[in-house]
Amino acid sequence: MLKYQQIATEIEKYIEDNKLQQGNKLPVLETLMAQFAASKSTITKALDLLEKKGVVYQVRGSGIFVRRHKRKGYISLLSNQGFKKELEGFHITSEVIELDVRKPTEEAAYNLNMNVEDDVYYVKRVQYMNKKTLCLEESFYNKSIITYLNNEIVSDSIFKYINEGLGLKVGFSDMFLQVNKINEEEAKYLGLETGAPGLYIETIYHLTNGQSFDFSKLTYNYEQSQFFIQANSHFL
Amino acid sequence: MLKYQQIATEIEKYIEDNKLQQGNKLPVLETLMAQFAASKSTITKALDLLEKKGVVYQVRGSGIFVRRHKRKGYISLLSNQGFKKELEGFHITSEVIELDVRKPTEEAAYNLNMNVEDDVYYVKRVQYMNKKTLCLEESFYNKSIITYLNNEIVSDSIFKYINEGLGLKVGFSDMFLQVNKINEEEAKYLGLETGAPGLYIETIYHLTNGQSFDFSKLTYNYEQSQFFIQANSHFL
Repeated sequence: MLKYQQIATEIEKYIEDNKLQQGNKLPVLETLMAQFAASKSTITKALDLLEKKGVVYQVRGSGIFVRRHKRKGYISLLSNQGFKKELEGFHITSEVIELDVRKPTEEAAYNLNMNVEDDVYYVKRVQYMNKKTLCLEESFYNKSIITYLNNEIVSDSIFKYINEGLGLKVGFSDMFLQVNKINEEEAKYLGLETGAPGLYIETIYHLTNGQSFDFSKLTYNYEQSQFFIQANSHFL
Repeated sequence: MLKYQQIATEIEKYIEDNKLQQGNKLPVLETLMAQFAASKSTITKALDLLEKKGVVYQVRGSGIFVRRHKRKGYISLLSNQGFKKELEGFHITSEVIELDVRKPTEEAAYNLNMNVEDDVYYVKRVQYMNKKTLCLEESFYNKSIITYLNNEIVSDSIFKYINEGLGLKVGFSDMFLQVNKINEEEAKYLGLETGAPGLYIETIYHLTNGQSFDFSKLTYNYEQSQFFIQANSHFL
C-alpha cells in the first residue's frame, strides 16, 4: 500500500470514528497535513482517491465534505476487497462446495480470453451472511495466472491471497447484472423456492496490465440483496 | 463542457469509430496531442476522465489501452446523461402518467433532507425500450431547487433540462439496489404478472455543492434489465 492509500484509509477511519455525517466539512488541508503527518501532495492524492471511492466530495472554493448515506444493511456493490469492511456488523462465512482444476466452459474461456484447452481453477462456494445464504458463487481462475489455490485460501478471501500471496495487482473489472427467476439448483443452495427472484452478477476481473484472470458468476438471494453505489459526476 | 471533457468525448468517439477492442493500444501522447489539437495537460486530463469512466486503462511504462466489453444489449448502470448514448440502437420513449406539485412522502422528504411541508415536483413515468416496458419511475424533485417542470420536459431528458435549462451542475449520486417480487400496480405498468422478479433502484442525486435535489425510485422489468458497470481498481 502506498503512503497516500494509507492516509486515505486513515482519513476514512477518522470519518467513521468521529461519526461524521453527510455534508460535514473536513478540516482544511493544513490541519489534515498536521493531523496525519503527511505532505500536501500526499493529502491531496488521498482526498482524490476518497472522492473517487465516493467517501468525500469537494466543493470548489468551499472545502471537502463527507459523503455518507444513511441506510444500514446495504452492501457496497463495487468494493470487493473492502467487502468485509463494508459488512461491519455482518458475519460472513463461505462453504466450499467444489474446488478443482479443469477445462473452462466455453463461456468462461470467452470471458477470460483463454483457450478451452487451457486449465482453470474452478471454485463453487455458498456465502452466508448472518447464517442466511447470501449468494451462490461459481468462479473460474486462469491457472496460468492464478497458479495455486487450496481449500484454506478459498474458504477465506481469495483476493487477499492473490494480492498478498501471489503479489498480483488487481486493476479493474467489468460487471454484468441481470435479474431473473432462479432455477432448481440455485434454489436448493440458496434455500429458496424455484422461480424466486435472483440477482445475477457476472464479473471479469483484470490485473493492472489488462489481463483477465477471474470470471465469476454470483447468484444472490433476493432476500439478502441490498446494495449501494456511491457514484460520481463523471458518470452522469 | 470544459475543453478536456470535449476532448474526452472525441477520444471516446475515435475508439468507437475505429472499432477498437479491449486491449488495443491508443496512440502515444504526442500523437493524441496532434490528432486532437490539444495541449499535453488537456490530453492527460481527458485520459484521466476516460479512465475514471472505465473507457481506458493505463499501464505504467507501457501505454494507454482500450476497455470495451464484448456484450451487446447491456445498459450502463452508472451513466445517466449518457444513457441514450449507451443505448444506441435501442429506441427509448417515456409515457408520463402523473406530473404535479405536491408534498413529499416521508420517505422522499427524508432522502432529500427536506421538510414534509415543502413542495416537490412529483413525476411518474413508464419508460419503454424497443416498445417493451423498461421501467416504472417515480421521482421527487425538491421544488426550491428544480423550480419548474412541465410535460414536455418530463417526456424528454429531465437531466438535460436541469443542466442546460436551469444551469445546475449535477455532482454525485447515491444508488440503492434491491431485488424483490413486484406488486400488483408495478405488474400492471410493466405488463408482467404480480410476483415476477423486479429490480428496484433508488437514487438520490446531488448537485456539486452537495444539495440533494432528486429522489427517484425505478422498478425495472426483469426481462429487459441487463446492466454493466466498468469498475476501477480504487473500488477493489
